[in-house]
Amino acid sequence: MITFNVTILGSSSAIPTPARFTTSQVVNLNERLYMVDCGEAAQIQLRRFGIKFGRINHIFISHLHGDHIFGLPGLISSLTMGGKKGELNIYAHAELRSLMSGLMNLINDSEDFKLIYHTLNKRRHSFLLEDEKIRVESFPLKHRIPCNGFIFREQPQELHLRGNKIEELNISISDRLAIKKGMDYILPDGTVIPNKDLTLPPLKPRSFAYCTDTAIHEKIIPYIEGVDLLYHEATFGDNLKDLAKLTGHSTARQAAILASKANAGKLIIGHFSTRYKDVSELVNEAREVFPNTHAINDGEKIDVRDSH
Amino acid sequence: MITFNVTILGSSSAIPTPARFTTSQVVNLNERLYMVDCGEAAQIQLRRFGIKFGRINHIFISHLHGDHIFGLPGLISSLTMGGKKGELNIYAHAELRSLMSGLMNLINDSEDFKLIYHTLNKRRHSFLLEDEKIRVESFPLKHRIPCNGFIFREQPQELHLRGNKIEELNISISDRLAIKKGMDYILPDGTVIPNKDLTLPPLKPRSFAYCTDTAIHEKIIPYIEGVDLLYHEATFGDNLKDLAKLTGHSTARQAAILASKANAGKLIIGHFSTRYKDVSELVNEAREVFPNTHAINDGEKIDVRDSH
Repeated sequence: MITFNVTILGSSSAIPTPARFTTSQVVNLNERLYMVDCGEAAQIQLRRFGIKFGRINHIFISHLHGDHIFGLPGLISSLTMGGKKGELNIYAHAELRSLMSGLMNLINDSEDFKLIYHTLNKRRHSFLLEDEKIRVESFPLKHRIPCNGFIFREQPQELHLRGNKIEELNISISDRLAIKKGMDYILPDGTVIPNKDLTLPPLKPRSFAYCTDTAIHEKIIPYIEGVDLLYHEATFGDNLKDLAKLTGHSTARQAAILASKANAGKLIIGHFSTRYKDVSELVNEAREVFPNTHAINDGEKIDVRDSH
Repeated sequence: MITFNVTILGSSSAIPTPARFTTSQVVNLNERLYMVDCGEAAQIQLRRFGIKFGRINHIFISHLHGDHIFGLPGLISSLTMGGKKGELNIYAHAELRSLMSGLMNLINDSEDFKLIYHTLNKRRHSFLLEDEKIRVESFPLKHRIPCNGFIFREQPQELHLRGNKIEELNISISDRLAIKKGMDYILPDGTVIPNKDLTLPPLKPRSFAYCTDTAIHEKIIPYIEGVDLLYHEATFGDNLKDLAKLTGHSTARQAAILASKANAGKLIIGHFSTRYKDVSELVNEAREVFPNTHAINDGEKIDVRDSH
């Protein structure tokens, strides 16, 4: 099966600790890497976890709080020093560019390396990127400042050929490609073999949704309905529900309620307040509502759909 | 003896690795903390090494390359979130303020916490800070862009009282304070006891000099002559002397030559190019010229003067 997983670079909320850096994740779909948020020292975590970060060509920034962007100057600086070529696409709110402009003066330009800023729509669901393997969409969350969630969708795969049948009929390579796309097959005598006798349905395309920072916000459910893997912030425990509301964050229980209503396959929670030395209290709270919940740790690699 | 040591937060050159973060050090003199340079994730290293960074009130920035300043936004942001009060003094070239201004917009101001920028003189030796315990001076180094070195000097200590003699004569507390400052003592019968019979000379004030980034630059010798502990960059080995010159850096041998000519007590080298997985080659090269050389590692705490 094509690789589709997420590596956690940072799982803390606003303040990093040696065990939990600030927010950043890397999505690997078919060995192409997509970074989501870039907290301080994301570049160090990439090296620590053996991720070849010269292969990152797209960075998605949820919102313009420091714990989600302070890693950008260092990362981009190291990419230029490492001789990265081509384009680095940054999807963020329009203000990122001016916030970064001072420090970006320190980074040597290169003719072969271009930074391309794409402006996120703060108010509407939108499509950001699409190619033969992936589609990335964004949608508004509910935080103290504008904040966007993202969903990474695998493109529908081709039909699987029924090997025995194909060999029995000695079907040519070019006809096989047509059958994979849904065509029937016609024998020399004119008999039509219907496509369904020659193929098996493809696996349902997988998807990963990323929702931080946000208060619980049920309006996002249509955009993530049926997602295989949902990352949702859980900054606080339910006893701090009022603080969560006040600061535009969610409790672990709220993350689970959202996962349940969105029919997610699995929920991963993070963005933990540094007050939780041990986050099992948060996981337990979430599991009461949504049993398939996991608390992320820096360095973990999580498959978007469990193989079992 | 009063504490006077240096903790290494980062020992790599431009690019950080999981083992060596970019440049930052913390000087502790009498439990007051002075930060020198602030590479990315310096705040994480402070936590990792158990340094209470709310106690840092002065940060000295050698020059405006990213690997020496990318940690500032995260550190200052965490200080404000941690409720730091009072002043944080930043000594740097004038341009730092505009480079930082974008990201500083993300950091919440507080009436009780003030950032104060002090402009370093790029061309001349100058005095930056002085109180009863410490004097900090800066002087120009020789890099691709303006760069300053720093020297942290312990203030001369008072004379030590000769305990036996003081007790024998039953000298009052107020007279003892006067004797510590160098006064003679006069007995009730008018006999003068000279100060030298009542005191021992104080220890020679200790000093720590910080010289990075720089090509070897003998003009700094008058400013650091006789320094107890010299930190001097050693980005390259001597076989890359030409590259060192071209990029405004030093080789390990050059650092040692400088330490020797300046009559330093001990040399510590760092700012290692990531090409050196093992830096023993650099240490050996330096020791041929200056035997008391040590290669720094992240997390090390080094006394400014060895007690033995």
